[in-house]
Amino acid sequence: MQSNILDDKFFMKKALLLAKKANWRTSPNPMVGAVIVKNGKIISEGYHKKAGLPHAEAEAIRNANESLKGATLYVTLEPCCHKDKKTPPCTDAIINSGINRVVIGMRDPNPKVSGKGVEILNNHGIKVIEGVLEEEVKKLNEFYIKYITTSRPFVILKIAMTLDGKIATPLGESKWITSEKSRKFVHLIRSRVDALLSAYGTVLKDNPMFTSRIKGGKNPLRVIIDPELKIPLNYHVYNPPPNTIAVVHEKKLNDKNIKHLIHRGIEIVSFSSEKVDLQWLMEELGKRQITSLMIEGGSSLNSYALWSGIVDKLMIFIAPKIIGGAQSYPSIGGNIYKNLDEAFEIKDLKIRMFGGDIFIEGYLKGLKKF
Amino acid sequence: MQSNILDDKFFMKKALLLAKKANWRTSPNPMVGAVIVKNGKIISEGYHKKAGLPHAEAEAIRNANESLKGATLYVTLEPCCHKDKKTPPCTDAIINSGINRVVIGMRDPNPKVSGKGVEILNNHGIKVIEGVLEEEVKKLNEFYIKYITTSRPFVILKIAMTLDGKIATPLGESKWITSEKSRKFVHLIRSRVDALLSAYGTVLKDNPMFTSRIKGGKNPLRVIIDPELKIPLNYHVYNPPPNTIAVVHEKKLNDKNIKHLIHRGIEIVSFSSEKVDLQWLMEELGKRQITSLMIEGGSSLNSYALWSGIVDKLMIFIAPKIIGGAQSYPSIGGNIYKNLDEAFEIKDLKIRMFGGDIFIEGYLKGLKKF
Repeated sequence: MQSNILDDKFFMKKALLLAKKANWRTSPNPMVGAVIVKNGKIISEGYHKKAGLPHAEAEAIRNANESLKGATLYVTLEPCCHKDKKTPPCTDAIINSGINRVVIGMRDPNPKVSGKGVEILNNHGIKVIEGVLEEEVKKLNEFYIKYITTSRPFVILKIAMTLDGKIATPLGESKWITSEKSRKFVHLIRSRVDALLSAYGTVLKDNPMFTSRIKGGKNPLRVIIDPELKIPLNYHVYNPPPNTIAVVHEKKLNDKNIKHLIHRGIEIVSFSSEKVDLQWLMEELGKRQITSLMIEGGSSLNSYALWSGIVDKLMIFIAPKIIGGAQSYPSIGGNIYKNLDEAFEIKDLKIRMFGGDIFIEGYLKGLKKF
Repeated sequence: MQSNILDDKFFMKKALLLAKKANWRTSPNPMVGAVIVKNGKIISEGYHKKAGLPHAEAEAIRNANESLKGATLYVTLEPCCHKDKKTPPCTDAIINSGINRVVIGMRDPNPKVSGKGVEILNNHGIKVIEGVLEEEVKKLNEFYIKYITTSRPFVILKIAMTLDGKIATPLGESKWITSEKSRKFVHLIRSRVDALLSAYGTVLKDNPMFTSRIKGGKNPLRVIIDPELKIPLNYHVYNPPPNTIAVVHEKKLNDKNIKHLIHRGIEIVSFSSEKVDLQWLMEELGKRQITSLMIEGGSSLNSYALWSGIVDKLMIFIAPKIIGGAQSYPSIGGNIYKNLDEAFEIKDLKIRMFGGDIFIEGYLKGLKKF
């Protein structure tokens, strides 16, 4: 049977919706969906539910109740072909199934796979169509793409500010700038990312829990920069669960509180430089299979993260309020600034109203495009 | 002939479009449009072009080529009935024309007219329908409404800032934060308002002309707060045209530069308080028939204007850029600030993309609704 590009987009959209059913629970794997189509009808579908469980294609092939001879497989990501993991290569399953046409959203950016899955299928006489709804698929797996190509997490800088760009009054009051709906959405994002990064300043001010307080929310790993161990032991972040990493200066490793933290199951990650190197920290988190991270800090951490070059995406919630004051905390503070011709540029802006607030999403321009 | 509300809205929309043809050139009068409809067809139309020229209704009646007996007049604003002005009362012209139905967008907020025009028409057996497209009509004449009810100008606070809420680097660099398209739009607004307000800080930094550099642009009166006469005489603002008012502390009235300014046709408005009282200044400008004013200042003036309670509307252009820096100039600075529960609230937000920038319009909540 012949298919045209409109059909291909239609079935790829189905595969995308299936992929999303995993609800950001597949880390460190991507979210992948697959449908099998025969004579213009979907005869089977599947998605990757969790690392360690079957891949989407394997699931769809297994779920089929009829012969797949001559069928088309739509899968959001190029099928895997490598054997150094728990699940068998999907290319084998496809070849054995009788499927003779495979439509993929994007190549797997994983260097172990990229292009090789397509090649193996081609070599077995299976026609492969690439790049259908590629932008959408890439967006869905932006965490995975960054992680698998750089071994570092995709980083979201979240800011909740007033219309005049302030995140707190001079006395540190910041509860609450944004609407309840915006804050709920932040909890949703917390449940999607692997980790959350903050620093002692924000923790001392607000004693936050940094949990995802929505129905069925999964808590991110809390990564707390506390070089001098200034956060009291009774604060929420030092009382797991959820899992927590304390980022501490090595001169504090003999501090009496360290053993309490370790006893509570908190991992201590130490550094010797004057200030913590955030690129190094992202590398450390990458080693722990953290594929995504949201920063929820103050003026200084926001600034430091931007200048460190670790930020991939901005999520800015702007409340329709003005507090004014030259001494109020700006969304991005710090001792350094950019001249206008070298300012950080934000691209691919998406704007919408959100519970009375303005919600702006965008990506840092000039960062490597994955 | 019977009309229904859909017809009424349709013809009122036509009248609104006619009103806009005056292109904000009617100050201190409102912009008004009128159409005359007979047997479901527009048989005449008119709009108020300029103060001193005929009103919209009079224009439409004069333009008619056939009998108006039994016709309906659609006019955005309640017809005038007072005789203490250059043009005769429109109620007379309507009564004499044979028109037997009048549909108006809104009552004239002018206390000399409000409701009286409607009453006179009713007393002459003319049916009056009120409030058709009232919100749109009110919005079109927000300058006039504020002015005629308070004797003070409608005040727009314009801000051009980065995504992190900064209007300049610590060194004062602000050229250019926003896109050319946004800046052109500001020039368009300049051509619509009667006056522009700024202060010596901004003038010393940028030496702006504050003119409307668009095709056919009308320049606003420049109102420059310069209490200590710090702006050099060779700066643009002190070289009219356009017309300029210098707001000076009275202790400087004997300064040698004062006579130069006066010689150049600049009006000196002086005050004796420590800081200039912006409510007083708005009253002074109202006496000069300034119905609208845009503030184009820096962090301090923006803050001072908000706290003075003179701001009606915000126009914020946000460039998708970040410059950071706790010492960069915030959009709203000043020594004072609001706690979150008493923050200035902005209502009726309108957001759109504008030449790559985000453009946000809104009104100060809690101000008297006109």
